Amino acid sequence: MRKKVRLGILGLGRIGIMHVQNILAMPEFEIVIGSDPFLTEEREKELVELGIPTCTRDPEDVFSNPDVDAVVICSTTDTHSDFIIRAAKAGKDIFCEKPIDHDVDRILAAIRAVKEANVILQVGFMHRFDRHHGALAKMVHEGKIGDVEVLKITSRDPEPPSMDYIRTCGGVYVDFMIHDFDMARFILQSEAVGVYATGTSVCDPEITENGDFGSAHAIIKFENNALAVLEVARRATFGNDQRIEALGSKGMVIDQNVEDNNVRLYGAEGGYHSAKNPWHFQQRYKEAYLVELQAFAKAVIERGESPVDGKAGLQSVLIAEAAARSAKSGKYELVEKIEI
Amino acid sequence: MRKKVRLGILGLGRIGIMHVQNILAMPEFEIVIGSDPFLTEEREKELVELGIPTCTRDPEDVFSNPDVDAVVICSTTDTHSDFIIRAAKAGKDIFCEKPIDHDVDRILAAIRAVKEANVILQVGFMHRFDRHHGALAKMVHEGKIGDVEVLKITSRDPEPPSMDYIRTCGGVYVDFMIHDFDMARFILQSEAVGVYATGTSVCDPEITENGDFGSAHAIIKFENNALAVLEVARRATFGNDQRIEALGSKGMVIDQNVEDNNVRLYGAEGGYHSAKNPWHFQQRYKEAYLVELQAFAKAVIERGESPVDGKAGLQSVLIAEAAARSAKSGKYELVEKIEI
Amino acid sequence: MRKKVRLGILGLGRIGIMHVQNILAMPEFEIVIGSDPFLTEEREKELVELGIPTCTRDPEDVFSNPDVDAVVICSTTDTHSDFIIRAAKAGKDIFCEKPIDHDVDRILAAIRAVKEANVILQVGFMHRFDRHHGALAKMVHEGKIGDVEVLKITSRDPEPPSMDYIRTCGGVYVDFMIHDFDMARFILQSEAVGVYATGTSVCDPEITENGDFGSAHAIIKFENNALAVLEVARRATFGNDQRIEALGSKGMVIDQNVEDNNVRLYGAEGGYHSAKNPWHFQQRYKEAYLVELQAFAKAVIERGESPVDGKAGLQSVLIAEAAARSAKSGKYELVEKIEI
Amino acid sequence: MRKKVRLGILGLGRIGIMHVQNILAMPEFEIVIGSDPFLTEEREKELVELGIPTCTRDPEDVFSNPDVDAVVICSTTDTHSDFIIRAAKAGKDIFCEKPIDHDVDRILAAIRAVKEANVILQVGFMHRFDRHHGALAKMVHEGKIGDVEVLKITSRDPEPPSMDYIRTCGGVYVDFMIHDFDMARFILQSEAVGVYATGTSVCDPEITENGDFGSAHAIIKFENNALAVLEVARRATFGNDQRIEALGSKGMVIDQNVEDNNVRLYGAEGGYHSAKNPWHFQQRYKEAYLVELQAFAKAVIERGESPVDGKAGLQSVLIAEAAARSAKSGKYELVEKIEI
Repeated sequence: MRKKVRLGILGLGRIGIMHVQNILAMPEFEIVIGSDPFLTEEREKELVELGIPTCTRDPEDVFSNPDVDAVVICSTTDTHSDFIIRAAKAGKDIFCEKPIDHDVDRILAAIRAVKEANVILQVGFMHRFDRHHGALAKMVHEGKIGDVEVLKITSRDPEPPSMDYIRTCGGVYVDFMIHDFDMARFILQSEAVGVYATGTSVCDPEITENGDFGSAHAIIKFENNALAVLEVARRATFGNDQRIEALGSKGMVIDQNVEDNNVRLYGAEGGYHSAKNPWHFQQRYKEAYLVELQAFAKAVIERGESPVDGKAGLQSVLIAEAAARSAKSGKYELVEKIEI
Repeated sequence: MRKKVRLGILGLGRIGIMHVQNILAMPEFEIVIGSDPFLTEEREKELVELGIPTCTRDPEDVFSNPDVDAVVICSTTDTHSDFIIRAAKAGKDIFCEKPIDHDVDRILAAIRAVKEANVILQVGFMHRFDRHHGALAKMVHEGKIGDVEVLKITSRDPEPPSMDYIRTCGGVYVDFMIHDFDMARFILQSEAVGVYATGTSVCDPEITENGDFGSAHAIIKFENNALAVLEVARRATFGNDQRIEALGSKGMVIDQNVEDNNVRLYGAEGGYHSAKNPWHFQQRYKEAYLVELQAFAKAVIERGESPVDGKAGLQSVLIAEAAARSAKSGKYELVEKIEI
Repeated sequence: MRKKVRLGILGLGRIGIMHVQNILAMPEFEIVIGSDPFLTEEREKELVELGIPTCTRDPEDVFSNPDVDAVVICSTTDTHSDFIIRAAKAGKDIFCEKPIDHDVDRILAAIRAVKEANVILQVGFMHRFDRHHGALAKMVHEGKIGDVEVLKITSRDPEPPSMDYIRTCGGVYVDFMIHDFDMARFILQSEAVGVYATGTSVCDPEITENGDFGSAHAIIKFENNALAVLEVARRATFGNDQRIEALGSKGMVIDQNVEDNNVRLYGAEGGYHSAKNPWHFQQRYKEAYLVELQAFAKAVIERGESPVDGKAGLQSVLIAEAAARSAKSGKYELVEKIEI
Repeated sequence: MRKKVRLGILGLGRIGIMHVQNILAMPEFEIVIGSDPFLTEEREKELVELGIPTCTRDPEDVFSNPDVDAVVICSTTDTHSDFIIRAAKAGKDIFCEKPIDHDVDRILAAIRAVKEANVILQVGFMHRFDRHHGALAKMVHEGKIGDVEVLKITSRDPEPPSMDYIRTCGGVYVDFMIHDFDMARFILQSEAVGVYATGTSVCDPEITENGDFGSAHAIIKFENNALAVLEVARRATFGNDQRIEALGSKGMVIDQNVEDNNVRLYGAEGGYHSAKNPWHFQQRYKEAYLVELQAFAKAVIERGESPVDGKAGLQSVLIAEAAARSAKSGKYELVEKIEI
């Protein structure tokens, strides 16, 4: 039987456990150890029951464990770059949740460490691995619509997070729209030049009071002259709303919303009602979260290219920074250029 | 300016007035006279106001009027064959609502009269002229799906007519499914060999008590070996339900339901609600009722073939008779063959 | 019979003739006279044949004709404001193609003349009268989605006009996106505060060389804090692409593209092919062009409010001007405020 | 950790291996042994590599293995009833691929053995576990459409099996439409009274020459007066075609076809092309094959009711027999009544 990739999991909160559950059902992986600074004895028991053989509060136990081939970083954002550097130095391949960091220098330091250690770093932009978004990207890459003129991405959550979260998340661009910055780069295969960004908060005026937008917009110019027109919203009462479309010189591709099933119910009020949209992003991207880890396993086992490399992590943050500047200045802002 | 076709209208009930309103907006026609046995003085005033210059209770006034080029027969079914014969003898072209008659001998007499007088007879099977059904038929005729294996037609009204109507309409096959018998012949371009028919009345058990079906089904074998699987229903709570599909050796065509508009409303219950289906068949086939008269005008002006000739009127009734027999016998019944 | 509104038609080019054809089938109107500066004797014959009793090269013949109740202005844009003023002075109601003018002062003069003469002026924003767009607007106005956060309009033509046209049309904002500026005002029932606009021309780089955009974008902030995100494109290879969506505090409405019919064709390549999108805007808005004239007839006959008044004509141009400024400055630009 | 259900797999052909792959990824199961009469040494190695610890040619090794809690029967149909009886006698729970047998007496013997041994028998009607079909069934069971008048099921394969298979499969009703007989019983929660069946083979005339139908139809009357109108076809060039709809006294539910993803491609030919339909039934019902085993695991672990019991296996074959008789007689045929 093929050798399994032995994993250490850093961060065992909501996202961490979701990854753990996926990993436990994947033949490619074996979980060796998990760490979480908030681990209680009771929680430890549950995690062992779940299938994590060893649990610890100290991340160093993961980095220093010789049986760990690779780490999955699901801890808080402020730890990401540090953990990447320590994992790289320990020679371990790295899957890291997005974003790498809010600070560009720390991102660069992480990327350098990865490069020096010659390990694989994959950033957790799972949208790329969604069946629908992926099929659209493939069609664009195959030239089915010719040269892209406009790419539009709509990405909406059903309900806003707490105001505490809003205040500390770094702003809607680096916290939320970063997925779409990455998708735009991925689909267009080009780098962003500059961006205009703005927003409003009609549904949730409190968000504006906290210095952010309930609905944020960005128009990004890319090096290949394509424009990406992006929207994220914190409240779509009907559930997760994830749509992409691209217009090109030969045609258009549209990636429509997902519903729970294909059943339509017709009743006496006339017309039909569709099935529901998935609610949380974890439901919406359930399959994608699995597929991104399969891609990570493949890269690790075959020593291939990272499917979402450090540059993706860096560039998405650079666009987010330009967007945040533009939202303040009311002007088109250039995206900082950094060679890595 | 092109000479207009001057019309006499026979029967000024619900369907008659609908045709009159269409005709008044058509540059091809001019209404000369209308007749209705139930005409009151008050009603006459309204009809003149509407745009019918002369109204009469006596149909003979229409047949004998030298200014009438063609007649539109919208009177009760029992008068159709007689009016066709009288119109034909008067040398007038004829548009006649379906069915020509419930009695095959009377249909044959009408067809003979039309042939002898060399006038045009068009039977009012408006489904053929529906934009959606017509596009499907065209694709089949162009060979887009190859040889047809199965044709399915669903045709449902929103609510049943009165039990009085049910008792006197001649049964669901000749009253309702006759449209679909004609569509099957039209789409398949072949004649029916035999039929199995049955039905049920779960929604409206009273219909069964009155000797008919609330939902009637027929499987018809055609000379070209294609099967037509038909359903009509008297009650579809959500509105008019009209769908056709055909499977062939190369592919499939599906003609989906029409909605009032393309707007989808998403709300907090999740998913979306479509626009309504049109309610009555008059709304559903509003455009088709106009287009069939345009086709009639064209045939009359250009002295062309009737787009829905007497044979269509005859064959649809012969299939309806076989279906009614089968519904009683529980067996596959042959369709009577009559050469005309 | 109800008295007909007697019309004079100014401008008998492509759009003029389209209106004439609609008008000839409408019982509300009677055409008295038509004028066109490029009228030839041969063309005059054709127009009389078509149903315009009198044709002239001199627009004064229309304004001075006592039998003319109302005028329909379909001449070149540079004549609109002048013709409005002359028609108003002659006491005639006015239907005028969009835009009223490119120059704000001339628009204001036209609006003043209309006000002083107390005649009806309707601007030809036919998008409002589209069945699908109209149903969406109605849902928004009825509060079905609560307060609007974001309104998105996509409006694409199948192929760009000639470069001559591009150079002289006044730019994509006043020539093309003006419809969507009006729709945004109409749907949101609020006035625009400011706008950011930009564009690109990947499909047709020559358009950029001529100082315009093949695909133009605008983000408009409204007084009620809603954002309108608009796109027009000159080339959508698959045909007319007209979609609107609005996200609000209670839900979302989406108005999807129109196809020629509801038939889907499945073939050996897998999946299905839909029917085509309508090609030119004249096909796409065929029904809307008729309905806007019915609304005009109603307003004229009942002496009601204009369904699309001079303010609509003015505001859409003011937004277009701000958009054009923004596209040059790269900054958010305020929409000029003018009280009328 | 919860005790795993230890499985013996009988039959390691195409379907068997598909089940094995699903089982290997399920935490509920552990595979102990697999048997196949055609096992070669080379194949044995592959199967061990795949994750089946012990392989044998002798099914008795499975039945007599004390570590086996339950068996999964994927061998040829003629062995099913015998294997069920032997497994039941050995006290093992049983998952058996459909049909239990073509012979009613053998089915009854198998059901008796299961009853006597008080083990769980689940028949492999995976359609019930499809997300879309299941959601439709749930809506019907919840009364969302009131009393069912008509149930329609379309079930089409992309291409016919070999003529050898056609000749030996027992006919299209017991081989293919049996899934839909089961679905009709499941959705309607009622038993079939009688059936009319017929078919044609336009796409593949050779099928008729071999005594079967390329497209087979059945109209089944149920005890609750609902009609089920079923079609299966051997050739749908575009891929798997699986649709269900039900009309009831309150409304209608429609379960539309599945496509590989939600992307639509618009091109210069106008309109859009959808994604492909899944090709083989194994792709179409990939998820359902997994879910039916999860249901089996649940029943076994909780000692609950079988989700698809022996009666389902029996009744579906009884309907198939009546359908085959009707296809020959051209008459409505009663379904045999057997109390178990």
